Amino acid sequence: MTAFDLTVRNGRVATASDTFEADIGIRDGLIVALEKTLPPGRQDIDAAGRWVLPGGVDSHCHVEQLSGMGVMCADDFYSATVSAAFGGTTTIIPFAAQHRGHRLPEVVADYSRRAAEKAVIDYAFHLILTDPTPEALSTHLPDLIRSGITSFKVFMTYEALKLGDAQILDVLAVADREGALVMVHAENNDIIHWIVKHLQQQGFTEPKYHAVAHAPLAEAEATHRAITLARLLDTPLLIVHVSQAEAIATIRQAQGLGAHIHAETCPQYLFLTAEDIDLPGVEGAKFCCSPPPRDRQSQDAVWQGLLDGTLALFSSDHAPYRFDETGKLPQGEKTTFKQIANGLPGLEVRMPLLFSEGVIGGKISINEFVALTATNHARMYGLLPRKGTIAIGSDADLALWNPERKVVLTDALMHDNVGYTPYAGRQVQGWPEVVINRGRIVVDDGTLHAERGSGRFLPCGLPEPVRQARARQKPAHFIRTLFENAHTR
Amino acid sequence: MTAFDLTVRNGRVATASDTFEADIGIRDGLIVALEKTLPPGRQDIDAAGRWVLPGGVDSHCHVEQLSGMGVMCADDFYSATVSAAFGGTTTIIPFAAQHRGHRLPEVVADYSRRAAEKAVIDYAFHLILTDPTPEALSTHLPDLIRSGITSFKVFMTYEALKLGDAQILDVLAVADREGALVMVHAENNDIIHWIVKHLQQQGFTEPKYHAVAHAPLAEAEATHRAITLARLLDTPLLIVHVSQAEAIATIRQAQGLGAHIHAETCPQYLFLTAEDIDLPGVEGAKFCCSPPPRDRQSQDAVWQGLLDGTLALFSSDHAPYRFDETGKLPQGEKTTFKQIANGLPGLEVRMPLLFSEGVIGGKISINEFVALTATNHARMYGLLPRKGTIAIGSDADLALWNPERKVVLTDALMHDNVGYTPYAGRQVQGWPEVVINRGRIVVDDGTLHAERGSGRFLPCGLPEPVRQARARQKPAHFIRTLFENAHTR
Amino acid sequence: MTAFDLTVRNGRVATASDTFEADIGIRDGLIVALEKTLPPGRQDIDAAGRWVLPGGVDSHCHVEQLSGMGVMCADDFYSATVSAAFGGTTTIIPFAAQHRGHRLPEVVADYSRRAAEKAVIDYAFHLILTDPTPEALSTHLPDLIRSGITSFKVFMTYEALKLGDAQILDVLAVADREGALVMVHAENNDIIHWIVKHLQQQGFTEPKYHAVAHAPLAEAEATHRAITLARLLDTPLLIVHVSQAEAIATIRQAQGLGAHIHAETCPQYLFLTAEDIDLPGVEGAKFCCSPPPRDRQSQDAVWQGLLDGTLALFSSDHAPYRFDETGKLPQGEKTTFKQIANGLPGLEVRMPLLFSEGVIGGKISINEFVALTATNHARMYGLLPRKGTIAIGSDADLALWNPERKVVLTDALMHDNVGYTPYAGRQVQGWPEVVINRGRIVVDDGTLHAERGSGRFLPCGLPEPVRQARARQKPAHFIRTLFENAHTR
Amino acid sequence: MTAFDLTVRNGRVATASDTFEADIGIRDGLIVALEKTLPPGRQDIDAAGRWVLPGGVDSHCHVEQLSGMGVMCADDFYSATVSAAFGGTTTIIPFAAQHRGHRLPEVVADYSRRAAEKAVIDYAFHLILTDPTPEALSTHLPDLIRSGITSFKVFMTYEALKLGDAQILDVLAVADREGALVMVHAENNDIIHWIVKHLQQQGFTEPKYHAVAHAPLAEAEATHRAITLARLLDTPLLIVHVSQAEAIATIRQAQGLGAHIHAETCPQYLFLTAEDIDLPGVEGAKFCCSPPPRDRQSQDAVWQGLLDGTLALFSSDHAPYRFDETGKLPQGEKTTFKQIANGLPGLEVRMPLLFSEGVIGGKISINEFVALTATNHARMYGLLPRKGTIAIGSDADLALWNPERKVVLTDALMHDNVGYTPYAGRQVQGWPEVVINRGRIVVDDGTLHAERGSGRFLPCGLPEPVRQARARQKPAHFIRTLFENAHTR
Repeated sequence: MTAFDLTVRNGRVATASDTFEADIGIRDGLIVALEKTLPPGRQDIDAAGRWVLPGGVDSHCHVEQLSGMGVMCADDFYSATVSAAFGGTTTIIPFAAQHRGHRLPEVVADYSRRAAEKAVIDYAFHLILTDPTPEALSTHLPDLIRSGITSFKVFMTYEALKLGDAQILDVLAVADREGALVMVHAENNDIIHWIVKHLQQQGFTEPKYHAVAHAPLAEAEATHRAITLARLLDTPLLIVHVSQAEAIATIRQAQGLGAHIHAETCPQYLFLTAEDIDLPGVEGAKFCCSPPPRDRQSQDAVWQGLLDGTLALFSSDHAPYRFDETGKLPQGEKTTFKQIANGLPGLEVRMPLLFSEGVIGGKISINEFVALTATNHARMYGLLPRKGTIAIGSDADLALWNPERKVVLTDALMHDNVGYTPYAGRQVQGWPEVVINRGRIVVDDGTLHAERGSGRFLPCGLPEPVRQARARQKPAHFIRTLFENAHTR
Repeated sequence: MTAFDLTVRNGRVATASDTFEADIGIRDGLIVALEKTLPPGRQDIDAAGRWVLPGGVDSHCHVEQLSGMGVMCADDFYSATVSAAFGGTTTIIPFAAQHRGHRLPEVVADYSRRAAEKAVIDYAFHLILTDPTPEALSTHLPDLIRSGITSFKVFMTYEALKLGDAQILDVLAVADREGALVMVHAENNDIIHWIVKHLQQQGFTEPKYHAVAHAPLAEAEATHRAITLARLLDTPLLIVHVSQAEAIATIRQAQGLGAHIHAETCPQYLFLTAEDIDLPGVEGAKFCCSPPPRDRQSQDAVWQGLLDGTLALFSSDHAPYRFDETGKLPQGEKTTFKQIANGLPGLEVRMPLLFSEGVIGGKISINEFVALTATNHARMYGLLPRKGTIAIGSDADLALWNPERKVVLTDALMHDNVGYTPYAGRQVQGWPEVVINRGRIVVDDGTLHAERGSGRFLPCGLPEPVRQARARQKPAHFIRTLFENAHTR
Repeated sequence: MTAFDLTVRNGRVATASDTFEADIGIRDGLIVALEKTLPPGRQDIDAAGRWVLPGGVDSHCHVEQLSGMGVMCADDFYSATVSAAFGGTTTIIPFAAQHRGHRLPEVVADYSRRAAEKAVIDYAFHLILTDPTPEALSTHLPDLIRSGITSFKVFMTYEALKLGDAQILDVLAVADREGALVMVHAENNDIIHWIVKHLQQQGFTEPKYHAVAHAPLAEAEATHRAITLARLLDTPLLIVHVSQAEAIATIRQAQGLGAHIHAETCPQYLFLTAEDIDLPGVEGAKFCCSPPPRDRQSQDAVWQGLLDGTLALFSSDHAPYRFDETGKLPQGEKTTFKQIANGLPGLEVRMPLLFSEGVIGGKISINEFVALTATNHARMYGLLPRKGTIAIGSDADLALWNPERKVVLTDALMHDNVGYTPYAGRQVQGWPEVVINRGRIVVDDGTLHAERGSGRFLPCGLPEPVRQARARQKPAHFIRTLFENAHTR
Repeated sequence: MTAFDLTVRNGRVATASDTFEADIGIRDGLIVALEKTLPPGRQDIDAAGRWVLPGGVDSHCHVEQLSGMGVMCADDFYSATVSAAFGGTTTIIPFAAQHRGHRLPEVVADYSRRAAEKAVIDYAFHLILTDPTPEALSTHLPDLIRSGITSFKVFMTYEALKLGDAQILDVLAVADREGALVMVHAENNDIIHWIVKHLQQQGFTEPKYHAVAHAPLAEAEATHRAITLARLLDTPLLIVHVSQAEAIATIRQAQGLGAHIHAETCPQYLFLTAEDIDLPGVEGAKFCCSPPPRDRQSQDAVWQGLLDGTLALFSSDHAPYRFDETGKLPQGEKTTFKQIANGLPGLEVRMPLLFSEGVIGGKISINEFVALTATNHARMYGLLPRKGTIAIGSDADLALWNPERKVVLTDALMHDNVGYTPYAGRQVQGWPEVVINRGRIVVDDGTLHAERGSGRFLPCGLPEPVRQARARQKPAHFIRTLFENAHTR
């Protein structure tokens, strides 16, 4: 038996369901042995006193992408993946984003090139779909699914991105037939624009009006509508970045009805509120994202959604814009709330924030932490068992968390290219000191060891919700079913 | 004391809350005396053995109007009001319907002229609003409200009629400020068109596919969305022609939250199902309306909604099209479901159907019948106490119902210009034998006594839901409130 | 035509559904004429500028009754009815209260005697049933129903009064078969006693602990349980004195399911909170009743329940105990919360409080006020059309309300025998200046004109919920139905 | 490195979250190695083509216990554990059952003795508590918790077993303070007895009336009440053997409110209906259990509850009674439904039924199967990580399932002492061919290899719901909190 390339020894291992003490033997980038005491490897890391967790999977982040408002992300694949790695994440799933008029194959080819050159950890792609032409629906999407891009995001708001309900039905129908999962940004575009119009007419321009414009009911309505579209076709749907109570109640109710509805939330909805946007001058721009942070009651509802399983994913929705003319403040100090690029950085702090408040704070178990930050993402998007867990044959993606280490989050600590963190000044307890991707030590206590371009593309398989929906034996073709119902009525 | 012009004697009188035996004394078109035994009038009607009820108010009917599909109604104001009168109704509220590009003052002036020339009973107007231009919103609607048109209907479906969500918010905001009630046809246009497209692609064209296309979820979704828009502005809203359980549950929930949501249903949702559309050839076209009749469970849910007060209005949604090339069958026997004019006649049978099934069948009390067919309509649209009740000073609008009389509904019995009734062959028990409008005997046991053009226009006052919303002291201006909340957060 | 005994002239009349201006002609104690202008009667009252409303019906009050804790009410039929009359009420429905071991015929005979001797306004009786023996169920209750006592109250708490669930089913079954309505005091006895035990063990004795012991969940639970028992038999049930949000939500949900569930609330749940009990020393005893006043959110929920129809009755639950050793303070200043007689006076202030906050405050219409304080009670308990409305043939029970008059409520103003009012110091607007019962002027601006014993017993007919349940054609015999279901399964 | 005692090779391993291919190395009864290919052990089993799953944990079964009706179980610890093992289960948690008047230490000592002598697989104990005396509450329960019995079952029905609500609060309070989980049999005793009384009065005695007597509403009510008691104390609660939709909806709603409510269901609610009880003669007795099997809609609701996580446990509720005078038929062919011992055998078929319908049928994933039959039980009752999973350091409890093997369930196939199976004649696909407990091969393709008395007692740790509730930092002492709230109101 050849020696292991690497062993992680004496740690306390946690998966989404189990906790145990074992050495981990790694060979050729894979986890190949779990045993109480393994023989020495070519390299050995002592994890005594630390948790050994699956490397995080951040399934919602924007990297090297032009936003719906036409602003380029501050992070390219290099800075984004470095930042993610420092935060304990070993896989990201950013968006290959179509802009209207662009053909999908080119969009993806371009994005793949960018990623391959720069990423330091592994990555898969979602697609952002803004132009579901007949050709896209009939040819490009099936091709992309076959090539491992099995999740498509659609928008119900942003003029440049949004699809109408019939277009969403088209996308859901293709996804249902071909085996992909549709993700939706659910806010009612008309409501937001109507409020914006009135705010502007009356001269209200400060950043805090962003939160006024993105009314909670705009999210609740669109969430309900998106779910109804999915229920019509009895097809899975994932609601991303859920922020408030009524949307969560709607999701919970649909799940109880047996609809294949899944949902995600993000750090900003647990750790920020709209008050953070209500700062003097344009300072509040640092906290503007969509949906915006809400209030304490909403935070409680989001925690409750995570605890009872209504919300299965905890992602960053990293959307990196600098606090200057290139990003948040196109007009400098004169920037109005409508001009502020929407989005917050979060790749690096996502896991430490939840570890500290959730695990150390006693709200969730270590296994729930693993599920929410890694395993559920891998399962949702067809990357399990390769990613998101610690099991024989899985990629050796690990993070060694020191549960005692206290760290004060600062702008300087961050490795992204944003220049600030919305959580500056907060102390967290628990930190990923060593981060390993495919057996490669990427980060070791503050130092990066991975090379630009060393990350690999991960083709995604069938998303678990699609597998479930199929297994539950829905009649093969919805429209046909409708007809048959009609005939036999 | 001068003699009464007319007395109605020995009847059993019912209002929305009371039942009593009294003679009714009428002078100058008004009810001026209620007493056990009145002295003889210039004319006396013996109502012994009969119910004396308020004349019905049918607040949802289409008369002498071009439909959203561009088809002219088969009924003008003469045939429609004659038909209504024979069914126990003494007030109708049809729609002055704007088509895009038309100016509201002209629309209403034209419609007023038509009505004044022909109506044999009294009438008020709703407005159908399809083009909420700045001028319409700022000038025309306030003017119309002042002239007594205090309810506006908007559509969420039909390409030629539908408004977007932001337009609906504009209309709700004007209505809120100026004192009008918005009515909404709530079906999701995209869902319907998406299903239609697929049905057509596969060659499904029979009438029954109309019910497939107008999926229950299309109604449930739009109902929820319309309610959310009203909740956003904390303004009243009336959902018309509600047909199914999930929409009703959504309405009930919103009412329980204190939202000012009101709702109406129609005979077709109590007495027909989609099976009625599933007939050989084009026969099913006779039963096509939107929303379509659903199934037994939906009927039960609609009854329950009437019983527990969730649905406060029972209207006909009379939409008269002949079963020939002028109406239902533009292409004759080759007419596909998309070409069938949507709508059913119902002015004349609305009250007899509910009287028979509801009152005689024991489901509702006579007082509930009065409320659902007359009083609630008058209250909802600002016509109370003039219309919809039997009280001192109210217009003498009465119907004498013989609760023993059994009538088989037939096409020939109807007085409208449609040529068929969807309820042909059904026997009902209970019939309005004498119908009186402003003290004028309009119908007396099968004979019309009123002259063309003798009906009068009724300016509506403040709708009760608007009065309620105002009395409950909502802050005066929503948008301002949003700002204030923002400031104090 | 003989002259009227009395006319009420120039007033603005309101019923549960109508508002009109008319003179009211009264003869032999009945309303016999409504007309714009009537000829003079033997006596005429000018109601110009005042509302002429139906005299109130207070269907929940305790008079000359031994409480569940064994304390005698401070009010006998004289003081209670005088107090009621001064507050605009012309009919009360107190409880003939069985104590265990007592036979119902004697209980009722004794109570009838007491009432006949002293009452100054009309009255009907409910029965409090604490000992549903086979004889009571098979003989006494049917007899009492035939004699006009058609509503039975049962308790789920109070050791001396409470029935078990099976006993409640027995009572519901008899009521269902014989045509009576069951009223229930819904609080979970075990929860209350369990908390009390712990409070006492730890020495917590002040009045405010009464509100702690009667936890909101104790009411929510028992409400749900009582409703389930009624649903099992598909029989009507009335939940009395509902105080909080979760119970109201449970009631609303059951109504939406079509269950025949009705509910009542009282002034203490709109106008007091538990903070009122939290006063120094034993002062809080003045506000102790069961369920106790809750908090602001509960008040909002109760208002909402009244507005949307979930709560149909507004009664006083007048339970009169003096603030001394005979009532609230059996041990004087050493009285612990468990020894405080439960109950508040309210006969006299019930209607003025609601008129002021509701009608003048804009929350409800004058018609809703009439419904909540008079008509709904008469309908619920089978007294309509004799009581609770203004209609030809109804008893001439009227109250003339001056909507401008402002009155500060004080202990001295009250005409009951309690010695204090929990609402002392509050100013109300709107006051019943003249109160008429069966054509007799009982109160005229502060002076009593009726004689002891001049009130009459009112036999109740079929309660409306029973009529409804029967009309909706429930299969005749529940148990038989169960068997049949079993057979055909 | 010493050789493994046993290896399981070439299998496909599944845990609650993971699926992977690995050899499993076992030493001293523990899983000590997971690796793609391990060196040979002293004994090797080839699992190629089979699933290697954690041995099942059946946390609800009655063994060698006197029932609430006074009937002794047909199975002692030997036959029960043999039967369990043949069905893939390696741990059972039966009930040490107190009968009133018996002291808990003796009850447990006696039960421990019986188990130690006979069990062939491992076991833990719940306690059935019927007599919560002060001594039991203050001394015995804390002692038992310290000795590893950390779950107490209480009954809301059965005269000999049931506790009142206050007693349940006592038990919940002790469990909360000392760290145990309360399980509840939730049916309303009064409802059942009331229906039984009426059935008996009318001579309905066949087995099917058992299902009539145990009305769905009896379960729905008691479920709601038990949850309310737990909410009052903010303490965890487990509802066992949930059978129908309304109870499930109530549980789901409570979970969404953040209450610590958990729930279990059983094969009889997925695979039987009340129709199975409706057989000629006394044959239906074979299907009588409480709650009884319901109808198709209930089955759907139970499946949905399992799928969305509302129901976390799938147990057998094995309650073994022979179909003769010793069990089901005390009076032979004259047995009435009230005399039939309540309960069904299920230890052996629990897992094969769910594997076949769930995993092979596509309703659930293999991981969900593991969670529902093993891991969730171990977590719920404080046996994780020792039992219920496949991880380094866990007991080597494994079952090798052949997913292709089809087996027809017959009475003769069963290894319990009941003599029949309610599922006789059904074919299932998937069978546990090899079953291993602590590294010992207990069953190998139809042959038992374990000796009487070789099973071991498992002391349970802190149940996970208790850990969760504590970690979420509820204030330490409920009653104190109530007081503090009272003070600061």
